[in-house]
Amino acid sequence: MFTLPQKDFRAPTTCLGPTCTQDQGSGHGDDLEGECSRKLDQKLPELRGVGDPAMISSDTSYLSSRGRMIKWFWDSAEEGYRTYHMDEYDEDKNPSGIINLGTSENKLCCDLLSRRLSQSDMQRVEPSLLQYADWRGHLFLREEVARFLSFYCKSPVPLRPENVVVLNGGASLFSALATVLCEAGEAFLIPTPYYGAITQHVCLYGNVRLAYVHLDSKGVKVKGLILISPQNPLGDVYSPEELQEYLAFAKRHRLHVIVDEVYMLSVFEESVGYRSVLSLERLPDPQRTHVMWATSKDFGMSGLRFGTLYTENRDVATAVASLCRYHSLSGLVQYQMAQLLRDHDWINQVYLPENHARLKAAHTYVSEELRALGIPFLSRGAGFFIWADLRKYLPKGTFEEEMLLWRRFLDNKVLLSFGKAFECKEPGWFRFIFSDQAHRLCLGMQRVRQVLAGKSQVAEDPPPSQSQEPSDRRR
Amino acid sequence: MFTLPQKDFRAPTTCLGPTCTQDQGSGHGDDLEGECSRKLDQKLPELRGVGDPAMISSDTSYLSSRGRMIKWFWDSAEEGYRTYHMDEYDEDKNPSGIINLGTSENKLCCDLLSRRLSQSDMQRVEPSLLQYADWRGHLFLREEVARFLSFYCKSPVPLRPENVVVLNGGASLFSALATVLCEAGEAFLIPTPYYGAITQHVCLYGNVRLAYVHLDSKGVKVKGLILISPQNPLGDVYSPEELQEYLAFAKRHRLHVIVDEVYMLSVFEESVGYRSVLSLERLPDPQRTHVMWATSKDFGMSGLRFGTLYTENRDVATAVASLCRYHSLSGLVQYQMAQLLRDHDWINQVYLPENHARLKAAHTYVSEELRALGIPFLSRGAGFFIWADLRKYLPKGTFEEEMLLWRRFLDNKVLLSFGKAFECKEPGWFRFIFSDQAHRLCLGMQRVRQVLAGKSQVAEDPPPSQSQEPSDRRR
Repeated sequence: MFTLPQKDFRAPTTCLGPTCTQDQGSGHGDDLEGECSRKLDQKLPELRGVGDPAMISSDTSYLSSRGRMIKWFWDSAEEGYRTYHMDEYDEDKNPSGIINLGTSENKLCCDLLSRRLSQSDMQRVEPSLLQYADWRGHLFLREEVARFLSFYCKSPVPLRPENVVVLNGGASLFSALATVLCEAGEAFLIPTPYYGAITQHVCLYGNVRLAYVHLDSKGVKVKGLILISPQNPLGDVYSPEELQEYLAFAKRHRLHVIVDEVYMLSVFEESVGYRSVLSLERLPDPQRTHVMWATSKDFGMSGLRFGTLYTENRDVATAVASLCRYHSLSGLVQYQMAQLLRDHDWINQVYLPENHARLKAAHTYVSEELRALGIPFLSRGAGFFIWADLRKYLPKGTFEEEMLLWRRFLDNKVLLSFGKAFECKEPGWFRFIFSDQAHRLCLGMQRVRQVLAGKSQVAEDPPPSQSQEPSDRRR
Repeated sequence: MFTLPQKDFRAPTTCLGPTCTQDQGSGHGDDLEGECSRKLDQKLPELRGVGDPAMISSDTSYLSSRGRMIKWFWDSAEEGYRTYHMDEYDEDKNPSGIINLGTSENKLCCDLLSRRLSQSDMQRVEPSLLQYADWRGHLFLREEVARFLSFYCKSPVPLRPENVVVLNGGASLFSALATVLCEAGEAFLIPTPYYGAITQHVCLYGNVRLAYVHLDSKGVKVKGLILISPQNPLGDVYSPEELQEYLAFAKRHRLHVIVDEVYMLSVFEESVGYRSVLSLERLPDPQRTHVMWATSKDFGMSGLRFGTLYTENRDVATAVASLCRYHSLSGLVQYQMAQLLRDHDWINQVYLPENHARLKAAHTYVSEELRALGIPFLSRGAGFFIWADLRKYLPKGTFEEEMLLWRRFLDNKVLLSFGKAFECKEPGWFRFIFSDQAHRLCLGMQRVRQVLAGKSQVAEDPPPSQSQEPSDRRR
């Protein structure tokens, strides 16, 4: 580990200038600055309650200081989603409702998944599934995870079930790893732009910070490095050489590396040549290399809550397992996941080809829409998102304008993610999620066009009385 | 809140002298002293790895100090269960395996539950269940929980879905509440004996302590009080008057009260007259009264991972909800739980009558066995456990003897829970779980008799070479 700044620290490539990420849970994308206590100090005066105003206690002395920080994340970050959930688009019931191009979910294969999960082999209910199990996960599931990752990550040797810990999603895994690897106040390095919700995941329980590679973080002890590949929101994948370079850098500084490969099966362009870190012949520092995967993205099941850790470090696996009593998933779901992961025939012959074809078609559609608008964007062939450069729509190039533009989209009934939420240095970048049904994409892009052409149904500049606190705005 | 000791503090009744509790996760019941850092200091030299010795790194510098503490809980607390899981009794395949009378699970109604959960109304797989949902839980489930608790807790007014947060079990709820209500190092009061695993639940993430009512804890800021009713391991229930007394005491000191009613439907003697805190006409301090319930005990489904919070305090509900991204349960399971909880016909006419009859019969059997052995015990008519006084088997009355007796039981293939794990002041108390099938109970009690009659197959006093570290003993 080391203390920033390090003179010799140069991160390998991938650090685009402007960036921002937002997902379920990072809400409307208020500035996630990666440092909870600082946020708390700055933001507490703006705290707002939720729900029925009559029931809201303005006395937050019920909560501890960290409880107030935790609540603040909910209150501030959920605004976009609260607005969305109060007015969700529905083709029949609410055709003028909000189209969500903000949440990174794959809604293209619900039909395939519902059919597969409804098959009779999924419906096992036996006593052992209803009773306390190994907190690391049932052995039958960890065996399937090891086999699954061995195959799909192209591991040179079979991966081992004893290195697997399963739990209820990637968010929990970030929380657990941050807690067992770092003291409170220490940090992970993360190349930006990055999936902004990680800020909360490492902070809310663990009180761990993120140090952005572009930042001048001083005096923070760095314990590890977080790599996301394919990257969110850029869609970049690391080449084996880049991976080796990162890992060697980490080893030199005795840094843990958390490699989040949650989009590994969502590479829909074959030319991309994605490589899992588990496919490398040799890891420079296997005891400090910890791999994450989940079904949320690659199987379009963010509501199913299944994630897994793969690490050769027995201490880390055990410490995470010890926290898994708080991140456990139902035995019934463990059984279903084992059935799903072992069904390589269905995955290879039905699910993946169809999923990739649908992702590619949806990506092509949104790309062409953006091209027609003259909007520059990154085109990568992996993930569910397009990282688009709307800087020309911000006359002064400020984050205030970025937020106003985001609001104009929302007011015109389309939810997007803006750059600040991904720690983008440069205002004006937005993330477009394209992994949705054609009719919703089409309507969403039409509304985007209206806003950019100044033809949206709301005023370009809202009257002063409306430019109040974000969290009050739409309630 | 206040700082202990308080001269005017006198807890209402219920504090028996000796006690101890153990459950899944509190393992062989090493001394859970309720103060993590103290434990860490005392115990770290004894740390042992798990699994294949060749893979064990003795270098725990990979972990943060809290990571080592978290791992220590796993290593030390799981010994009894690791031993058990390596040699589980099975009527056909391993008849000389270990009988588990230590884990507080209800294994009497697996047939009823498997049948109910296998019915066609449980097998819904629809897109909304596979996608991100409100972290507080799907609204359809929170509505059912509110209806369910209104009915079974006999609430004078309908309980409200917006006061409900659902998550993956009671352990997670303790973890979340401790974190949002207390600063690190603060404490909850808890009457002893109590379910020992709560020590870990409030400590591992939250770094919150427990202050035992019998203890002379000095200088610790107390933020709340934990009440468990029906109580574990005593089986006691609080009368409405006792509840009011506790709640009034808490209000006087501005203490939060966490009421854990996880055994509320496992009262199998009608004469007991159990009353939920939610049945009270008026709560003295509703904004500081937080109720827990789960399906683990009352529906014998500890592996299903479903628990819920009921609180009128919107700040607390929101802060807990914000942490629920780390404690979420599958949408599919949420659907199943809603179906189960709404089926009052099945619950009232099939499940509860049969469950109570089976619990009563099993309780009667173990009670009579203990009576025949001349062992005093508490007989309460609620819960899955009998709290038994084996002090006469400890010549010197020490905790070392209690541990040795526990080991003799384990060596004779029956796993029990001993008093120290429940913070029992007086050595010699054991908890017997009776909620298991007759043939297992019968064999377990036979093995208990053998040990107490000095006729077990192992030596009374193990040779010196065997009396080494607990965590190495059986590996």
